[in-house]
Amino acid sequence: MAKKIILDLDTGVDDTLALSYTLGSPDIDLLGISGTYGNVVLKQGLRNSLAVLSLLGHPEIPVYPGIDHPSDKDEFLTPSADIHGKNGIGEVVIPDSNKEPETTSAVDFIIDSIKTYGKDLVYVPTGPLTNLDAAIKRAPEIVDQIGQVVLMGGALTVCGNVNPWEEANISQDPEAANRVFRSGIPAKMIGLDVTLQTLLTKKETQQWRNMDTPGSRFLADMTDFYIGAYAKFHPHLHGCGLHDPLAAAVAIDPTFVKTLPMNMQVDVDGPTRGRTIGDNTRLNDPQKTMEVAVQVDVPRFLKEFMSRTSAACR
Amino acid sequence: MAKKIILDLDTGVDDTLALSYTLGSPDIDLLGISGTYGNVVLKQGLRNSLAVLSLLGHPEIPVYPGIDHPSDKDEFLTPSADIHGKNGIGEVVIPDSNKEPETTSAVDFIIDSIKTYGKDLVYVPTGPLTNLDAAIKRAPEIVDQIGQVVLMGGALTVCGNVNPWEEANISQDPEAANRVFRSGIPAKMIGLDVTLQTLLTKKETQQWRNMDTPGSRFLADMTDFYIGAYAKFHPHLHGCGLHDPLAAAVAIDPTFVKTLPMNMQVDVDGPTRGRTIGDNTRLNDPQKTMEVAVQVDVPRFLKEFMSRTSAACR
Repeated sequence: MAKKIILDLDTGVDDTLALSYTLGSPDIDLLGISGTYGNVVLKQGLRNSLAVLSLLGHPEIPVYPGIDHPSDKDEFLTPSADIHGKNGIGEVVIPDSNKEPETTSAVDFIIDSIKTYGKDLVYVPTGPLTNLDAAIKRAPEIVDQIGQVVLMGGALTVCGNVNPWEEANISQDPEAANRVFRSGIPAKMIGLDVTLQTLLTKKETQQWRNMDTPGSRFLADMTDFYIGAYAKFHPHLHGCGLHDPLAAAVAIDPTFVKTLPMNMQVDVDGPTRGRTIGDNTRLNDPQKTMEVAVQVDVPRFLKEFMSRTSAACR
Repeated sequence: MAKKIILDLDTGVDDTLALSYTLGSPDIDLLGISGTYGNVVLKQGLRNSLAVLSLLGHPEIPVYPGIDHPSDKDEFLTPSADIHGKNGIGEVVIPDSNKEPETTSAVDFIIDSIKTYGKDLVYVPTGPLTNLDAAIKRAPEIVDQIGQVVLMGGALTVCGNVNPWEEANISQDPEAANRVFRSGIPAKMIGLDVTLQTLLTKKETQQWRNMDTPGSRFLADMTDFYIGAYAKFHPHLHGCGLHDPLAAAVAIDPTFVKTLPMNMQVDVDGPTRGRTIGDNTRLNDPQKTMEVAVQVDVPRFLKEFMSRTSAACR
């Protein structure tokens, strides 16, 4: 049976690439997208998810509205326009879908899917962990019922991208992330440790451009905007990080990365608020609930990335 | 040929255990001890090293006086009396040696030893990296000539022991540690990631007590003080960390730990001053100059630890 996947997206540039990777993967079954905030506000993310699904020929995939703000705040007002463009998809204009988000909430969709598919389900959050935290709060038993969480977020062995200790997704809602990390849910952290090693350049986006389909032209234009933002803000990298696509790829094929078994926490107090780090009080607990990716097979992932995203554009 | 080792000690409790482990290891050749400050002031550390060498029947091992203060300060005034006792060896009284420290400086001894033994030499600092930093400054070529540095210090995947991001040895002289980490010298970091997993309890110290030699009674009394300090300051651990002995053990037998190849830095500015972390600007450099221990074979190390320290007491 094909693996069942839920993508939880704050649909900016690399979320769109993760979605494209997933749509180009015949070996998995994308149950739906749960929406969150982060790269963009929730409403824009839902709009982008629906528009991309329509452009890439999959309007049948349902999109569920999630929580639109961090668990410790009343609203979210700071999308990442510098990196993802004002519309979240690199200022590229694509048509609206004629579909609307579902009326079921993302949290209900997540819980119901875990109840239905259990160990066959992999949940892939590529933004803050607000929806999953709320789902665990409402139905704590899902911690033991889900197959796995493969999350893009955090930085264990490298510096953060918001400041020297904070990665952007975790920084949006450190309390939610800390509760998820300590909940016992089996989770694999795909953090900056590995995603800053998987870099895309205009050499690869040119391959999409050469394909010359509506989808491939969109991916090329959108990603070139993102590569430009990286050149401005992270010039030493010489490319853009494929953060969210790597999480989707690992959800489908765990062998792309090597991981450390760990019990993790997120600092919520003090100057290092938002840092992802081992929980010293559970260091010697033989049971490790999380795995943190620390090495990645970059050439094999990049090859698969271009192959699957290109397949999604045909 | 037996591996040549230099121990660089701020001779507190676990430094003494590292020295005992080394003296109980027939497969290595301890060239000498270079003295530093940290757990105790330099003078007390030199005294302790000489006294322990005498007590354990090795007065022939030379002890060299190192730098007595951090590279960015004029003096060092804050030894760790709470953890190591006022005299650094758990308040246990042992006779002074009738030997004196050498007149050659530790920095000269380190440089000369590297020139003489080259790749056969492993240098094991268990305190701040002030001496090694000074040696590299005076003779930069040693970076390419030495076999390896196996240092006790830092915390990559776990919280620090001075504060949530700082480990004690690195915290003494972050600038020196950062220069060493970035120098390109081949170095293996044995940090809290692994040393907080190697815990000793009074069950093991009772084995020394039962041996009833002057050396074994000393190790038992000294280490019981240290276990008491851990019970007070780190009660969740249920034992004392074998920090320095693990570094000595890995210098002799690298297979005790699994390591990540990394390019490391020490934060010297900002709120996380003293943190050991990957250097993002060298993340994608295929050449990694350091290795960071992230897993340790605890049962095998503890067995070897008791066997070798006991041998040193006979």
